This record gives sequence, structure tokens and C-alpha cells, in this order.
Amino acid sequence: MIPSKEEVLAAYKRVRPFVHQTPVLTSTLLNNLAEAKLYFKCENFQKMGAFKMRGAINAIQQLSETQKQTGVVTHSSGNFAQALSLAAKNLGVKAYIVMPSNAPKVKKEAVKEYGGIITESQPTLDDREREANQIQKETGATFIHPSNNTDVILGQGTAAIELMKKHSDLDYILTPVGGGGLIAGTALAAHYLSPTCKVLGGEPFKADDAWRSLQTGKIEANETANTVADGLRTNLGDQNFPIINKLVPEIVRVEETEIITAMGLIWERMKIIVEPSSAVPLAAVLKKQTFFSNKKIGIIISGGNVDLKNLPF
Amino acid sequence: MIPSKEEVLAAYKRVRPFVHQTPVLTSTLLNNLAEAKLYFKCENFQKMGAFKMRGAINAIQQLSETQKQTGVVTHSSGNFAQALSLAAKNLGVKAYIVMPSNAPKVKKEAVKEYGGIITESQPTLDDREREANQIQKETGATFIHPSNNTDVILGQGTAAIELMKKHSDLDYILTPVGGGGLIAGTALAAHYLSPTCKVLGGEPFKADDAWRSLQTGKIEANETANTVADGLRTNLGDQNFPIINKLVPEIVRVEETEIITAMGLIWERMKIIVEPSSAVPLAAVLKKQTFFSNKKIGIIISGGNVDLKNLPF
Repeated sequence: MIPSKEEVLAAYKRVRPFVHQTPVLTSTLLNNLAEAKLYFKCENFQKMGAFKMRGAINAIQQLSETQKQTGVVTHSSGNFAQALSLAAKNLGVKAYIVMPSNAPKVKKEAVKEYGGIITESQPTLDDREREANQIQKETGATFIHPSNNTDVILGQGTAAIELMKKHSDLDYILTPVGGGGLIAGTALAAHYLSPTCKVLGGEPFKADDAWRSLQTGKIEANETANTVADGLRTNLGDQNFPIINKLVPEIVRVEETEIITAMGLIWERMKIIVEPSSAVPLAAVLKKQTFFSNKKIGIIISGGNVDLKNLPF
Repeated sequence: MIPSKEEVLAAYKRVRPFVHQTPVLTSTLLNNLAEAKLYFKCENFQKMGAFKMRGAINAIQQLSETQKQTGVVTHSSGNFAQALSLAAKNLGVKAYIVMPSNAPKVKKEAVKEYGGIITESQPTLDDREREANQIQKETGATFIHPSNNTDVILGQGTAAIELMKKHSDLDYILTPVGGGGLIAGTALAAHYLSPTCKVLGGEPFKADDAWRSLQTGKIEANETANTVADGLRTNLGDQNFPIINKLVPEIVRVEETEIITAMGLIWERMKIIVEPSSAVPLAAVLKKQTFFSNKKIGIIISGGNVDLKNLPF
């Protein structure tokens, strides 16, 4: 049902030559504040600024030679658009990216810089999907979903593998939960490589589809997604939810103010730039301080692509 | 006349156990932009968030046991107040800090957190010096100047020593120039340990006392200091200027917009938080691109203590 240990390890081997081995940072001040030992796996320093590079590079490599010749296509206004473009470029493959017409100019330029071929769509999900379908038909390109794709999931898990290789005795690893690719990949990696380490999620109350999905045992959709953690507004999918449902015991929900406070702590104390989404796990640790007290906790810092002109402080 | 190689190496040995060996980061994107190889020595990750920790820790250790018992005193509204407080705490010495009454609350709280004993003064330099004198008389504490003190200068140079130990073939090292402690220490270190490596300064046009001092051969004061690089508003002193005059061939002046652009590049591309002052050397490299083309250039990132609610973007 869920991918095997061999598949997890094969993805690690496949992804490794194409990504930065990002550093694991610690902060005495944040450890004192949390009364725990925190290990931040800094995917904000990853190529294109986010862990999404890993999943994209794994998924493209899994295509047949024929598929590689016709290229890949996705629709995304965020990090996966950049990730797929850069990964495709590195592997000599064409990447067609459907972006909503209202996507920020800076994101469109980043995709172009990485060689992605942009098609603009109307901003609705329906329109984006229709455009992506159209491109598939016209070019024969293979659609790669940003989070609901097993090879993407396996790729995302490689950040946790690097973290566990450095710190083999973690009690927990926390990730933010958006589309579900990162937490599913992380949970798989820990399940096979560090079975005593539990993987938990952090999620905004304002986009708590994953928390509710774990309660009901089926995929629930976000009712609102008005959160500062703009990477976490998406829903789970049928490829990642079974993994999450089986391997993730708990998702901790946090308030918007808690996310912003945690983000400020990381910026001010660690001097690194992280996206609001990346601050959600620290917010969860600080919220449940008694539970996490004295534990060794890995935190996947998902990315660092923020608009400096539009900060929540 | 200037401190000896033995003194430079002794300071390195003395400082090392008390500071972080901060990382040296590189960025392919910034290398491509500058058409050079840049090595950023990240003192923003140093204890208390700036290189000033190094000079403080060296200066206090050079005091006699009697002096240590009566403590140290300085006047500063910035990083040196925090540095002297934390260094003194680590060495079991009392630190009296004169801070202007209008100093930001967050800086006063940081000094208190590090155990510094704050005395408030009126905001003028005269008043600050008078208060510091008064404390010296009353307590017997030793005055430590933030930049015009040979032991402070030798301490600041230890960041460059760490950088050169990792990268022994640099053509240039650039530092920002404020009070002159950092560039003087860096120039001494390179002079003795990597004689083919030239140390250059970066300075805002709006606070170009050091550039003018190099032109006239004597210490010139700032006429204006209305620069975004708030750490660089101070003047050189008689302990550091002779070293700078002898060992620094050139100081490159940059515009305010160039500083802000360079700061944005470091934040967005490297995902690290640096002070405006720290962006001045990169601004200088980008300004004189032809001159620096294809060179290996070390850049001392001086610190990362910024007010997130008051950014120049």
C-alpha cells in the first residue's frame, strides 16, 4: 500500500546529486525558550529556496526517456512552479508551467529565469487545470502534481533523511502541512529509518483540512484558507493522505498570531529568512511546551521565499 | 608602531574558545551577478548577532585581575553595548553600560538580558562620555572603547583569520567601515597571514569620514551621518587610523540606494538577515564590477541585528 523502504532509499540516492545538503542549525536561545532541543533542517537554503526542489528532481528522473523528451507540465503559483522549472532545466527536460494571471510578477520572473515555459490562465483552479490538460494534449507533456504524486512525496522525504543521518536520536520531526507531500515523505522516511521518531504536523487553524481529515479518516477540504502561511492553503490528495493517516499520529493547529510570533523568533534569533509556513512547526512546539519538554525535535524549515515588501511583522 | 604578528595570533587564540566559528557562505546567484567569487563570513550568526563580541572578549581578557574585579564600562547605543555585556558575563566581570535615553527599548532589554548594568544619559556624546567618566571614578571600572582600542581591534580581526584559514587564496577582503575597529583588525590579520590579500573598505557617501581621512592622511570627522547603515555613523580614532592608513589601500564609497539593493540581494538570494551596514561591501563590489571581475573576495558580514518593524525595503 505505502511505498517501501527500498523506494525511500532509492529516492534519496536519486535526489542527492542534484540538491544542496542543507545545514541543520540550532539556537541556544530558542532551545531555552522551548525547553527542548530543536534541530532546524534549513531547506530555505535549498536550490530555488524551498524543499520542493527535491520532489521535482525525483519525479522527473522517474519518467521514461520518451516522457522526458516531451517534457513536464504543472500548475502552480508558488514554489513548485520554480522547483519543476529548475529541476527540469538541470535534467535537460522542458517544463510547461500554468500560472494564474494574478501571480506575482517576481514569481513569474523566477520561473522564466529557471527556463520554465509559462502559460497564463484565469486564477480559478478549474481554469488552471483546463490549461494544464490542454498543454498535455498538445505537447504530450507529463503532468506532475506539486504534492499528490508518489515520486514527489518520496523526494520531499529526503530532507528528513539528511536530518536523521546527522541526528539519529530525534524524538520527533515536525513539518508544516499544506498539500501533504512534505509530511507524507517525512513520515515515510522516519518510519523506515528511525522507527522511534514520530512525525507530527503543524497547521494553521485557518487551513486545518489535514487536522480534520485525521479526525474523520477521509480527505476533508479547507473551508477557509485565509492564513498568513500562504504555502499551506492547499488540500491533501489521495496519494499522500493514506500515508499521513497511517503514519502521522497528530497534527497540531496554531493561531495566526502564534505563527507570526514564531516567524519573528526565527528571523530575530537565528538571523535566517523563512516563509510564514516554515514557522508553523515552531509555533506548534511552543504551544504544546509541556508535551515537547526536554525532547529532541527536528523541524523542517520548508522554504525562504518571501515578499520583503509584504511582511507580517 | 602597529601590533605584531604575535599579538594578532595571541588574540586569535584568546578569542576562539568564547565565540562561534561562524560559517562562510557562498551564493551561485550572487557570484554570477558580481562575476566574481564571493565568500561571506557570517558574523550575523555570531553570539549577540555581530562581530563585536570578538573585540569585547579579547579586551576584557587583557585586563589585570584587579581590573577584572572592578569591571568594565562603555558607552554605546548599539552592538558594542550588547557585546561588552555578554563578553563580561562570560568572563565573570561586571559591565557598566551608558546608553542614551532615546536608545530603542529592545536594545536596552538585550543589554539587560546579557547582564549589563545600564546607566541612562542624555543623547549627546558629551553626556555619554561624562556619565562613563563618572562611573569610572565611582567604581574603578576600566573604560573599553567600542573601536579605538588595540585589544578590541585585534579581537575584531579574528573573524578574518577564520575566513583565511578556510580560504587561503583570497584576492581581497572587504569590510564595512564605521569606527574603524573591524577594518583595522582585518587589515592586520591579512597583512601577517595572507600578504597577497588586500583589505578594502566599503563606506556610505553619507558617512565618508574614513575615505576622506585616507585622502588627507589625518582623521577627518563625519560631516553628515544620515545613512541607512546605522552602524557606520561613527568616526575613526587614533588607535585604528594609523593601521588603516598604512594597510588599507582604498575605501569604496556607495550610495544609499546601492546599500539597500545589496541588502535586498543578500536577504532574498542568501536567505539570511544582515544589517544595512553589512551590505555595504557587497554594494562596493557590485559598483566596481570591472575592478573586482573574476577575483576571490571575502566579505565580512558584520551583523544581523535589525529592527524588523523598520526595514528599508
